[in-house]
Amino acid sequence: MSAGLRVGVDVGGTKVLAALLDGSQVIGQSRRDSVPGHDGVLAAVAATVREVCAAAGVAPADLEGVGVGVPGLVDPVAGVVSHAVNLGIVEPLALADLLGAELGVPVVVGNDLNVAALGAARLLGLGGDLALLALGTGLAAGLVLDGRLRRGATGAAGEVGHVTYRPDGPICSCGQRGCLELYASGSALDAAWESRSGRPVPAEVFEAAADGDPTAVALRDAFADAVAAAVLVLVLSTDVEHVVLGGGVAGVGPALLDAVSDALTRRAASSAFLRSLAVPDRLALVPGGAPVGPVGAALAVLPRTRTTEVSWRS
Amino acid sequence: MSAGLRVGVDVGGTKVLAALLDGSQVIGQSRRDSVPGHDGVLAAVAATVREVCAAAGVAPADLEGVGVGVPGLVDPVAGVVSHAVNLGIVEPLALADLLGAELGVPVVVGNDLNVAALGAARLLGLGGDLALLALGTGLAAGLVLDGRLRRGATGAAGEVGHVTYRPDGPICSCGQRGCLELYASGSALDAAWESRSGRPVPAEVFEAAADGDPTAVALRDAFADAVAAAVLVLVLSTDVEHVVLGGGVAGVGPALLDAVSDALTRRAASSAFLRSLAVPDRLALVPGGAPVGPVGAALAVLPRTRTTEVSWRS
Repeated sequence: MSAGLRVGVDVGGTKVLAALLDGSQVIGQSRRDSVPGHDGVLAAVAATVREVCAAAGVAPADLEGVGVGVPGLVDPVAGVVSHAVNLGIVEPLALADLLGAELGVPVVVGNDLNVAALGAARLLGLGGDLALLALGTGLAAGLVLDGRLRRGATGAAGEVGHVTYRPDGPICSCGQRGCLELYASGSALDAAWESRSGRPVPAEVFEAAADGDPTAVALRDAFADAVAAAVLVLVLSTDVEHVVLGGGVAGVGPALLDAVSDALTRRAASSAFLRSLAVPDRLALVPGGAPVGPVGAALAVLPRTRTTEVSWRS
Repeated sequence: MSAGLRVGVDVGGTKVLAALLDGSQVIGQSRRDSVPGHDGVLAAVAATVREVCAAAGVAPADLEGVGVGVPGLVDPVAGVVSHAVNLGIVEPLALADLLGAELGVPVVVGNDLNVAALGAARLLGLGGDLALLALGTGLAAGLVLDGRLRRGATGAAGEVGHVTYRPDGPICSCGQRGCLELYASGSALDAAWESRSGRPVPAEVFEAAADGDPTAVALRDAFADAVAAAVLVLVLSTDVEHVVLGGGVAGVGPALLDAVSDALTRRAASSAFLRSLAVPDRLALVPGGAPVGPVGAALAVLPRTRTTEVSWRS
């Protein structure tokens, strides 16, 4: 078959998403519910790969390779995942070897945020210097610096959710006090707001705030200020050119971008130094439906692709 | 003359230091007091270069090049320095062109912390992944990530001194409130301690604390906790393999390293996550007399040198 066919898979706590790329073009997507545990994760990933291939009339064995992004600690050289609590993985899982044997293709495995940062850089056409700040269950970033994925010495690069935001705040699941994650994650909004419609809490909060509900306004603004603080930690440490807001809360859309931009502008009002960094101009948002995770995972199969843009259909 | 002769110059607010390198070997050093302003800086740099050359029987024109590290905003491509307030430079100074014309050699200019990070990587033999955290008048870091200098999109990488540490703290010179720099810099110690002996305040504070003076113990521990917070900002964002403490406060010596290590250990006591990052093991100290600034500036002349170690005499 055609050279350059690759599948990327993003394994999350609730769903497994796959995208089939022909060169840099997304030509198919598939989706399954996540199944926890070693066997469940392996089966769900294999099934999404087979489904996205079958829909395009491609055999998995014809792929150049499969890239998989998973949350947790990943050894990208060995292709082993460990401590992916959301996936029910505690003992190390040799995902690359097992999936490769199952599908008969080379498999690479990476941290989900790292590969999503690669996908965002490509899909948003922002170039090679950005942080993808994922506002989801937790708060963490994937980093592409000077065109290269920054994993760090222990794979912990981008763990800004555990920088202290309120020294006298409550205890975080990590054991520290007042971590940014307690204020700037989807979980933080969920904990502070009772759903009225059954729709996602972030969308409800931002809509109620736009309607002038004072509780929602206060919650939105406090949330946005904490996200702004996380953005500043990234900019003041790495000076990334772009900070892309992603994760579940990005489903709020442009109102999220506006709120965080306003919070950054408020912080800079008294600081010529902050204004000189033009942080609001660095903000971007993962557009609804943009498969940054699966595309980034596919890109990890071949770090150097031939074109600089990927298109997709949501 | 011998190929590979280079001079590196570190321009600080109080002194100008130069080192002559033959290959990777430091074969001479010179020092002058700083003189503020365009003409003063240019003359002092040119004089230190001539002096270090003369002592070694080398003509400046025989150098492969001169590297200069300066505080402030540097355009390394144009070799222009601006906003170096400590040097009395407000309007842009075309330092590379002017000094090159004066000495008849190629000149490169870099931010002082960036080049010092390169120098620390080389002189301490730590490899290519570290932050040099300078505890001086201010608080900022130079970063070498995956073997490459990380300047960032606007040259602001490593400006962790302006991450918020105490949201309700006093106003920082940058206009924000409660910045790390207000707690974790030499200036912070100077402001909180009246010198008793005329010796540097950091040394006095740490010695008095070692002797059990309760005021000094409290000041040392508060300072060390703020430095620990800055170290954590660097590790949680970039996951650098090493964090090297430098700047004037590093003159305190191993007691500084111990205090910051203890502060990190205290923070990790309640957090298995922090313990897993083994942050105290990443700490190192610029040894007294190690010319990390001048050596790094010289290395900037030739980013790829032939050996991996530089020796020096203090």
